[in-house]
Amino acid sequence: MDVGFIGLGRMGKAIAVNLLRGGHRLRVWNRSGGAARELEPLGAEAVAQPAEAAARAEVLMLMLADDAVTRAMLIDQGVLERLPAGAVCVNLATISVAAAQELSRLTAARGVAYLAAPVFGRPEVAAAGKLNIVVAGDAAAVERVRPVLAAIGERIWPVGAEPERANVVKLAGNFMIASALESMGEAAALARAYGVTARQLLEILTSTLFAAPVYQGYGRLIAEQRYTPAGFSLTLGLKDVRLALQAGEAGHVPMPFASVLRDRFLEAIAAGESDHDWSSIAELAARHAGVPDSAAAADPGG
Amino acid sequence: MDVGFIGLGRMGKAIAVNLLRGGHRLRVWNRSGGAARELEPLGAEAVAQPAEAAARAEVLMLMLADDAVTRAMLIDQGVLERLPAGAVCVNLATISVAAAQELSRLTAARGVAYLAAPVFGRPEVAAAGKLNIVVAGDAAAVERVRPVLAAIGERIWPVGAEPERANVVKLAGNFMIASALESMGEAAALARAYGVTARQLLEILTSTLFAAPVYQGYGRLIAEQRYTPAGFSLTLGLKDVRLALQAGEAGHVPMPFASVLRDRFLEAIAAGESDHDWSSIAELAARHAGVPDSAAAADPGG
Amino acid sequence: MDVGFIGLGRMGKAIAVNLLRGGHRLRVWNRSGGAARELEPLGAEAVAQPAEAAARAEVLMLMLADDAVTRAMLIDQGVLERLPAGAVCVNLATISVAAAQELSRLTAARGVAYLAAPVFGRPEVAAAGKLNIVVAGDAAAVERVRPVLAAIGERIWPVGAEPERANVVKLAGNFMIASALESMGEAAALARAYGVTARQLLEILTSTLFAAPVYQGYGRLIAEQRYTPAGFSLTLGLKDVRLALQAGEAGHVPMPFASVLRDRFLEAIAAGESDHDWSSIAELAARHAGVPDSAAAADPGG
Amino acid sequence: MDVGFIGLGRMGKAIAVNLLRGGHRLRVWNRSGGAARELEPLGAEAVAQPAEAAARAEVLMLMLADDAVTRAMLIDQGVLERLPAGAVCVNLATISVAAAQELSRLTAARGVAYLAAPVFGRPEVAAAGKLNIVVAGDAAAVERVRPVLAAIGERIWPVGAEPERANVVKLAGNFMIASALESMGEAAALARAYGVTARQLLEILTSTLFAAPVYQGYGRLIAEQRYTPAGFSLTLGLKDVRLALQAGEAGHVPMPFASVLRDRFLEAIAAGESDHDWSSIAELAARHAGVPDSAAAADPGG
Repeated sequence: MDVGFIGLGRMGKAIAVNLLRGGHRLRVWNRSGGAARELEPLGAEAVAQPAEAAARAEVLMLMLADDAVTRAMLIDQGVLERLPAGAVCVNLATISVAAAQELSRLTAARGVAYLAAPVFGRPEVAAAGKLNIVVAGDAAAVERVRPVLAAIGERIWPVGAEPERANVVKLAGNFMIASALESMGEAAALARAYGVTARQLLEILTSTLFAAPVYQGYGRLIAEQRYTPAGFSLTLGLKDVRLALQAGEAGHVPMPFASVLRDRFLEAIAAGESDHDWSSIAELAARHAGVPDSAAAADPGG
Repeated sequence: MDVGFIGLGRMGKAIAVNLLRGGHRLRVWNRSGGAARELEPLGAEAVAQPAEAAARAEVLMLMLADDAVTRAMLIDQGVLERLPAGAVCVNLATISVAAAQELSRLTAARGVAYLAAPVFGRPEVAAAGKLNIVVAGDAAAVERVRPVLAAIGERIWPVGAEPERANVVKLAGNFMIASALESMGEAAALARAYGVTARQLLEILTSTLFAAPVYQGYGRLIAEQRYTPAGFSLTLGLKDVRLALQAGEAGHVPMPFASVLRDRFLEAIAAGESDHDWSSIAELAARHAGVPDSAAAADPGG
Repeated sequence: MDVGFIGLGRMGKAIAVNLLRGGHRLRVWNRSGGAARELEPLGAEAVAQPAEAAARAEVLMLMLADDAVTRAMLIDQGVLERLPAGAVCVNLATISVAAAQELSRLTAARGVAYLAAPVFGRPEVAAAGKLNIVVAGDAAAVERVRPVLAAIGERIWPVGAEPERANVVKLAGNFMIASALESMGEAAALARAYGVTARQLLEILTSTLFAAPVYQGYGRLIAEQRYTPAGFSLTLGLKDVRLALQAGEAGHVPMPFASVLRDRFLEAIAAGESDHDWSSIAELAARHAGVPDSAAAADPGG
Repeated sequence: MDVGFIGLGRMGKAIAVNLLRGGHRLRVWNRSGGAARELEPLGAEAVAQPAEAAARAEVLMLMLADDAVTRAMLIDQGVLERLPAGAVCVNLATISVAAAQELSRLTAARGVAYLAAPVFGRPEVAAAGKLNIVVAGDAAAVERVRPVLAAIGERIWPVGAEPERANVVKLAGNFMIASALESMGEAAALARAYGVTARQLLEILTSTLFAAPVYQGYGRLIAEQRYTPAGFSLTLGLKDVRLALQAGEAGHVPMPFASVLRDRFLEAIAAGESDHDWSSIAELAARHAGVPDSAAAADPGG
């Protein structure tokens, strides 16, 4: 299909490569031009203005930082105005529920279908074409873009006709990850207070009940207290928890765990660690308890 | 080995059967005699008084309801007094850190080693001999009872010489399970407020990031709102969170998630649901948000 | 002084009356014209457009509903444009820290000083000219408007040169009131569970340790479960807690009590009580505990 | 009346002095004999064994540290055994609801009425005979001891026939004080983040809405960050919050503010400050936000 693609960060670029490999025609734009030009040898056309990526596109895919950048791109930069009627706008990024609702209205007014299609998976997963894509919006539009989504993801999870539903699922998922981080942090602090290291505790639990990617991957970071460089920073973690809380507030959903998480992110950021991995909130329980880890010294005694 | 075994509830009985199958000699006692007699065809000797199970035992295994019952058995019923010096007392139950410390002192004073050996796994897992056993206490005693533990568990996780360490690991694990329940509950409430059913949400998340036994098993119960009969009741859940909080308090470990969980258990119990499965705390977020599930009616739209 | 006054709700009107009584010349505007015309017999000039209230004013006073209305008035309605350079804009309303910072920049760019001057006190207090006024902004501008503030308040509390400081103090004060409500609610639920009525408990405590206006006034509402009509609604309470949390987030200040309050307001609003008095959050602890009050039946036993 | 009095700490001694001044005959005992002998010149008889204080007493008054000490005194030291049938046991201390229920049963079995009569007021207030006394238990027994209570308190607040009700009121009151401390702490942290000192903020609020003894007294300590010597230590604060939570748990009352407070006390104690005044929990919000106070440098700008 003819695809316009805007936003070539680590995730966006990996996805664009898979679209090219899948035989789709891409016109790409990125704030810094380098990433766009790097895709040219693979067949992409790097354009000078974002609106040119939209012109003649059957599908416009967006992978931008946040609500503000996305709105500025579609509206202020004239991207939406150039998008042909009948095209489908597929937003792969994690934005707010409110922004999804607003963008859905704005695109509909121009005869463009808006699909929210946030993805689960890190850059490596994106590069392997193995993303899980949660998609919501007009069912016919979802069918139309299925070949494009199939090129980048392992599985597509449709969740209904209102685009914001996909954003809610994504925010709920990230909230659950952050909750897992905090629960490992409190459990590890409790264990440390009795001389059991985070490594011992998490090895047992992530080999058994919690043998899931989230616990094993982050459990290792926590056991090793290895929080830099960040895979996903505290700043981004705070953003997503804030979006979940805002979506909850609009729907009158109290979320006490999310509130605890918000406070954790704020405290870690106040301590100057905003660029640490979000799993570093697991240190706060131990810090409050005055039980720094002693993994190096400890002998499991077994 | 010569094993005394006291406490033949669902877990205890399944474990005792595996010990018999493993060739160990068992003298068993249970409050209600039926369970003990049922083991006789398998070779166990059912005794009339708990202290008789202890007499001549190389290993005394306990699987009793709580601190009070365990202490009453060892002290008031004279079990500890009858246990031969040099024997090893292996407590498989989830008791408090404080009780583990006390029992360890009392047994040591009589020349008996005390091992805390709480297990992860439900009755089916116990029946299959696949328990994960966290064990703490004197290393030589752990070695001595290894043949017994090997007969009932898939893997033994030693965590050091202080018995209470194993209790802490067990309580930390149960706290993490309860945290997973609450995080699914809040995520599901958020999703429901936007028309996504708990079933849709949890199918996506437990097939991907959260593909772990805890999330998949309990996710199914939550998606189906199937909380009776309980696998593990709210009353037991509250008990274990309380024990985690008490252990945290003794070690000066603030645990904000554990406090939220405590309030959830109390509220559900106040609502008259004490015998529901502990996963039913996942309903409270939705109840507070006024978003009952509509799984039956919903069409994922894809 | 020549005063333009925009926003004649219950508070605004009571304040405007005191300005007129104090000998100041007022040009007034309100969304619904009635309130403005009612002030004409007292000497006010009711104008047809908000910008006319600003023209020729030495002081422009605003008492509007929220950030959005205030910004729309100053910018979109052209009020700021008409305000003479050298005038002082005094915002009496509780708005967000971020909006105060923005409005301060915008007015400064036009040679107008911006003072945030939120007030503590209900309409009766305003009518009596007994408000407590927290004021922040340029010190010389504060001095200039002192005669105006003296006409409406009992005491002026300057808190520095950055306007948003006054908003922070106001939000902190409202947060403390809401915290007092919740603490009375939890205390009353605990008491009720043991047969002590909220009335008994709060009579004792608000006659002794907590003999302060906030506790006595709201304590009475809680004891009598009299939440309608609202003096200050749950919706407004949620707004102010949200503003406190947002200000906290911008300054990286975790506020666990504020997060609990947010959840309380959301739950009460989800239950359809958005127009109840904000003190009704005190019922939620009792509701969760399953202990409705029984004040009518109870006999204090003394 | 003939009064036995056990427990002459700062509070107990001040109360005993007022009983002597009121013309009552006292036999006193204290763990360290000095305090008892100091009362002899005022007419008290210092006895060598606690049980001697009980013999011949019409009223036995207790002011002991906690549940364990109180129970040990009444049971193990034989005090209850020596108390004449028909006597009234008046426990002035803050003990747990569960202990009050147990002691009430034990005394009743010996024909002794048990009254819980915890007091509000610090040692100076006790010395001035101005305590507020919350009393619960058999109404006739309350009448009988009224002359004694009148000698030590300004006002008596009867709350019913079940003794534990008075303990619940006392615990609820202390919980509300601790909540006020935390709310001042979070409000002050928010203010500090915007350059308003705790002193400025609390001067405004405790002169107006929060003009109550609790806020003014503790507000001053917080504004001055003066937490030693403690009037009431963090250790005692944690004890009382724990008792409130336990009473709540027994009655299935979730108390989210109380849980936040528990975590605050634990964190401050973990930081090695267990002997600081309990108002020092107000520092934790600021510490988490990275905004130490700067009261000395600040100029209110007015």
